[in-house]
Amino acid sequence: MMKRAYNFNAGPSALPYEVLEKAQQELVNFKDTGMSLMELSHRSKEYDQVHEKALLYLREIYQIPEDYEVLFLQGGASLQFAMIPLNFLASDKVGNYILTGAWSEKALKEAQKIGNSVSILSSKDTNYNFIPKSSELRPTENAAYVHLTSNNTIYGTQWHDFPELQSDIPLIADMSSDILSKEIDISKFAMIYAGAQKNLGPAGVTVAIIKKDMLANIPATIPTILNYQTHAKSNSLYNTPPTYSIYILSLVLEWVKNQGGLKVIEKRNAEKAGVLYNCIDQSNGFYTPHAQSDSRSHMNITFTLPSEELTKKFIAESKEQGFVGLAGHRSVGGCRASIYNAVPYESCEALVNFMEKFRINN
Amino acid sequence: MMKRAYNFNAGPSALPYEVLEKAQQELVNFKDTGMSLMELSHRSKEYDQVHEKALLYLREIYQIPEDYEVLFLQGGASLQFAMIPLNFLASDKVGNYILTGAWSEKALKEAQKIGNSVSILSSKDTNYNFIPKSSELRPTENAAYVHLTSNNTIYGTQWHDFPELQSDIPLIADMSSDILSKEIDISKFAMIYAGAQKNLGPAGVTVAIIKKDMLANIPATIPTILNYQTHAKSNSLYNTPPTYSIYILSLVLEWVKNQGGLKVIEKRNAEKAGVLYNCIDQSNGFYTPHAQSDSRSHMNITFTLPSEELTKKFIAESKEQGFVGLAGHRSVGGCRASIYNAVPYESCEALVNFMEKFRINN
Repeated sequence: MMKRAYNFNAGPSALPYEVLEKAQQELVNFKDTGMSLMELSHRSKEYDQVHEKALLYLREIYQIPEDYEVLFLQGGASLQFAMIPLNFLASDKVGNYILTGAWSEKALKEAQKIGNSVSILSSKDTNYNFIPKSSELRPTENAAYVHLTSNNTIYGTQWHDFPELQSDIPLIADMSSDILSKEIDISKFAMIYAGAQKNLGPAGVTVAIIKKDMLANIPATIPTILNYQTHAKSNSLYNTPPTYSIYILSLVLEWVKNQGGLKVIEKRNAEKAGVLYNCIDQSNGFYTPHAQSDSRSHMNITFTLPSEELTKKFIAESKEQGFVGLAGHRSVGGCRASIYNAVPYESCEALVNFMEKFRINN
Repeated sequence: MMKRAYNFNAGPSALPYEVLEKAQQELVNFKDTGMSLMELSHRSKEYDQVHEKALLYLREIYQIPEDYEVLFLQGGASLQFAMIPLNFLASDKVGNYILTGAWSEKALKEAQKIGNSVSILSSKDTNYNFIPKSSELRPTENAAYVHLTSNNTIYGTQWHDFPELQSDIPLIADMSSDILSKEIDISKFAMIYAGAQKNLGPAGVTVAIIKKDMLANIPATIPTILNYQTHAKSNSLYNTPPTYSIYILSLVLEWVKNQGGLKVIEKRNAEKAGVLYNCIDQSNGFYTPHAQSDSRSHMNITFTLPSEELTKKFIAESKEQGFVGLAGHRSVGGCRASIYNAVPYESCEALVNFMEKFRINN
């Protein structure tokens, strides 16, 4: 095995080595067709098997109930920010948004272009360093849905217990940065969506899991390609899907199954996060966590150093040692280690060793 | 070199072998980063070089004037069908559409959801077997733009001379199935767009070339992600672009340059089409072309056989001989050979040999 970087990129980010190896083997000649998968028609039986495999594995891994559609879309979460209100925000209803970071803000801003939408809960006042308590959630009258961002890459916070809503209010979650990272009960959500480029695969495909009854009242006036019904009716083959991205997704899903599924993945992610938070907590204040303890993300670990100089030095030295992607986002500063599913425990251990040496030397 | 299929798929379709080989070599470890390109941040300098290379090569190959933006988008031509009227169809204007096939029809249908849009010229009455004469083109009063489909995959027709419009009417062309197939004068168009999955690369990236002055009056009320200005301002990095698709696009563009550019590609495409049309024309009526002679596509050659039985036999026997993708679209029937840039002359020769043998034997 060649030397792999310690990849802590926030997204696009690390993919399982086994997936990349398989993709490499099959790239020029997919399953003896004499063609690359990229060269296959999206209507061919060979591609169809890949498409169906990805759908099936995702259903199996999450135990997605029968009354949910699984869709492969394009455009990332940013397109969903517009599609959700276009599809689900009727003119007599109110889009309810919980703000836990920049991405929730963007989702709300897009919804406000389309209909009546408000923030109903927010941690903006403290630079999004915590996840609000579900007990404080008060949906408005005529709520079309409640929207939340399950994990906040920039701030390093994550919902650990999702709110329980009264049954007539759909809960919609942008899970772009923690999908497939732990077990969840899909039936609590009306819709889950995620851009692929963290835990699912390469950038270019977006997964949406939508309860079928949500599709009943979509206005026929919206553009066909932006109507979830279009994609549900055509099994995500209305137009040419991003076939290669879906192929890599199918390999990543296979990998998740082979690892033992979400129970194993969740445990491993908790261990990876644990060793890093432990290092931060035991640094005598040298490393300061951005997120409050009960809101800490198992995907993105954010922390600051005592000074701007030390932060720069940390980033520079970490690069020399083969660590990639540790610079924090400008809205929080400091550092961020993104430890998605495909980041091995060994990378986290190596980072902890580096962090401890750096602290002692500085 | 391994045995390659004779790939006549209509899209996704053949890619240059050299591109696939290079992609395979670099898949697991991109330029000694210890990461796959799929694992690189879209803000990294390594990805930035790929992104800029793709933009630069496309500008060089087409000699795109400075006052045009080149954008990498998602969602295929189908999303452009909605984005174009959302961006460019003001409420006091009329979208003008030339109908030359199913894809033009879809473009018009989407525009009609958004604003006032009409067909101004059509070859529908004869099942789209020709491209209307430019001299018959009469744009409406207050035309927002004239939209055409430069090549019609299903019917095998292609515009060989684009209409000259009065200078205040923007010409917009869906070139999804013949972009990069021949030299064109970009300055005649206000906008060109194309899903990648024929001549550009894998499905999942859409290229748009737009004259900058078109971006001045886009309504701020449309969703941010659907506003061309958003992507122009951010160099197509507003949200995570489909990085791997753009990487393959950059390799395909490099290949086009290495072949000698569009002049060489155009000549080769004419030769490939020539040998196939010649075979059809000299078949004493055994093979009947769908397209009228002056409208014949150099990308998709459509023809029917004397009976449904012979068509089925032709498709079945061709498959046995290693030919892929020759079944015609149901709206035309018969057969279709798609001979995009990456289909070698040898594949066309092999097909002609097969067609002649089949004719003699039947």
